[in-house]
Amino acid sequence: MIAKHLAPLLLGLDLAGTFVFGISGAIAAIEKRLDLFGVMVLAFVTALAGGMVRDVLIGAVPPEGVADWRYPAVAFAAGAIVFVGYGATKRLDRALLIFDAAGLSLFAVSGTQKALAYGLNPFMAALLGVVTAVGGGTIRDVLVAEVPKVLRVEIYAAAALAGAAIVAVGSRLGVPALPLAIAGAAACFSLRIVAIWRRWSLPQSPAAFAD
Amino acid sequence: MIAKHLAPLLLGLDLAGTFVFGISGAIAAIEKRLDLFGVMVLAFVTALAGGMVRDVLIGAVPPEGVADWRYPAVAFAAGAIVFVGYGATKRLDRALLIFDAAGLSLFAVSGTQKALAYGLNPFMAALLGVVTAVGGGTIRDVLVAEVPKVLRVEIYAAAALAGAAIVAVGSRLGVPALPLAIAGAAACFSLRIVAIWRRWSLPQSPAAFAD
Amino acid sequence: MIAKHLAPLLLGLDLAGTFVFGISGAIAAIEKRLDLFGVMVLAFVTALAGGMVRDVLIGAVPPEGVADWRYPAVAFAAGAIVFVGYGATKRLDRALLIFDAAGLSLFAVSGTQKALAYGLNPFMAALLGVVTAVGGGTIRDVLVAEVPKVLRVEIYAAAALAGAAIVAVGSRLGVPALPLAIAGAAACFSLRIVAIWRRWSLPQSPAAFAD
Repeated sequence: MIAKHLAPLLLGLDLAGTFVFGISGAIAAIEKRLDLFGVMVLAFVTALAGGMVRDVLIGAVPPEGVADWRYPAVAFAAGAIVFVGYGATKRLDRALLIFDAAGLSLFAVSGTQKALAYGLNPFMAALLGVVTAVGGGTIRDVLVAEVPKVLRVEIYAAAALAGAAIVAVGSRLGVPALPLAIAGAAACFSLRIVAIWRRWSLPQSPAAFAD
Repeated sequence: MIAKHLAPLLLGLDLAGTFVFGISGAIAAIEKRLDLFGVMVLAFVTALAGGMVRDVLIGAVPPEGVADWRYPAVAFAAGAIVFVGYGATKRLDRALLIFDAAGLSLFAVSGTQKALAYGLNPFMAALLGVVTAVGGGTIRDVLVAEVPKVLRVEIYAAAALAGAAIVAVGSRLGVPALPLAIAGAAACFSLRIVAIWRRWSLPQSPAAFAD
Repeated sequence: MIAKHLAPLLLGLDLAGTFVFGISGAIAAIEKRLDLFGVMVLAFVTALAGGMVRDVLIGAVPPEGVADWRYPAVAFAAGAIVFVGYGATKRLDRALLIFDAAGLSLFAVSGTQKALAYGLNPFMAALLGVVTAVGGGTIRDVLVAEVPKVLRVEIYAAAALAGAAIVAVGSRLGVPALPLAIAGAAACFSLRIVAIWRRWSLPQSPAAFAD
């Protein structure tokens, strides 16, 4: 169903997103002092849940995270690398932010492109890109009993939407897929990182200041 | 797959449920002092998650919340209205209860009717109506780290089941769809509102009083 | 799609798993002092969510928990039995552990076998067995606002993986399905029970000891 020449790009983006989100899930697990299997489970869920939700919603069943062994293998490899490698450093929370931003950017782009490839219109495709991007991290946060990043004050879903919208609109305008993917991911990643660095935030409703 | 004459009724019920659950999600977000995107995300999830779960389970893929732009548009419109409009009032918690009850009633009915239209038997259709009705609010509550309404003492799933059962049984008896939808939604809504007002509750297991 | 002679075995395993997970969900609900509907909802979700996720992921839509009335009937029966019967005892937390371990074992086996029957390779089938096994209990724990068992220190996902791997590898080697199911379930159950009894646990990352 997907145009042949797009498949390798999508696969690459998806596997890269799987890897960095796997890293972020494993770091979150280690911060919570989970054991080896907890690290692996959280790497798996964080890396694959967003893409699986997208695939189920667009009817690409079974999802590639289930049909293709490379997805779980990459997620578990990320978990194992973090498990054995992170004894030396204490800067886990900063690393978590960066890997999470990278996963957000890659999945925003790949989610949008896959939804476009399945025939959704640009508006819905961008929404599905956001769902793909924030899905894994949201389930990760719910499982470790934190209010998900996507709901807290910093720019998060907004960054994913910026990346997804660039891909959706650019694709409609005929921009080739690879430069579009780079532009979308770069926009999302830099917006997210600058927001963390500058502590940017979005407006709150007037109601929040009423009492 | 759905009988032609039912489609407009289902669409109307679903969009109305989407709107009121979108309102309820946005109010919950503002109560938690989330930013603009948090409000939009919670409006989207609360409004569309229940119906998407139903559609995936009955094999109506891609779900209408993904295939039809009107669903997310209505959810986001609800979020925007709440975001700009609720600065003046402090009675948010009461409004949240009423919009949540309205969404529960509309989705209990539309979920049951859609499941019947896809050929499920009345027992399973009523169950799917309950899943549709409580799904969005449950995910909303999980995301803002509250124990979901569906599990707490007040009559909630029971009200949804009452509305769903009226639709399922009445449909089997040949009652036309529109009066059935009104009766089911009215039963669910009034049961829920009276339960809030009178603080009705269901029995607890004897075990709860044992210690 | 499933070989005829496998269907009764799968059905039996799945219904048994549904029953014991239904028991475990209902016990958890009573421990949290939920009302009758809370008990029923938690029995339903704990018993059926894992299998539904598996069915949606392998494309067996509508899932049997939706298409076949026996699944919800068994889950609700388990809820009702616990609701009326558990007033006399205070050893609920121990009973919860044992029923949860039994559900884990049965679903690890049935999930793996069903995935194999749908043509997944042994690695992916074992992973899906683990997802089936831990899914219901994880959603149960999230709904009652506890960090899921699957992430905490004791051997849990590891036990499910042991049972699933036995079925996946044995099936590839041509071992008949029934003895394989018994061996897999017994391995998972005994590993889980001994882990509880002996307080076995898996290693934590060196990072956890660094500070």
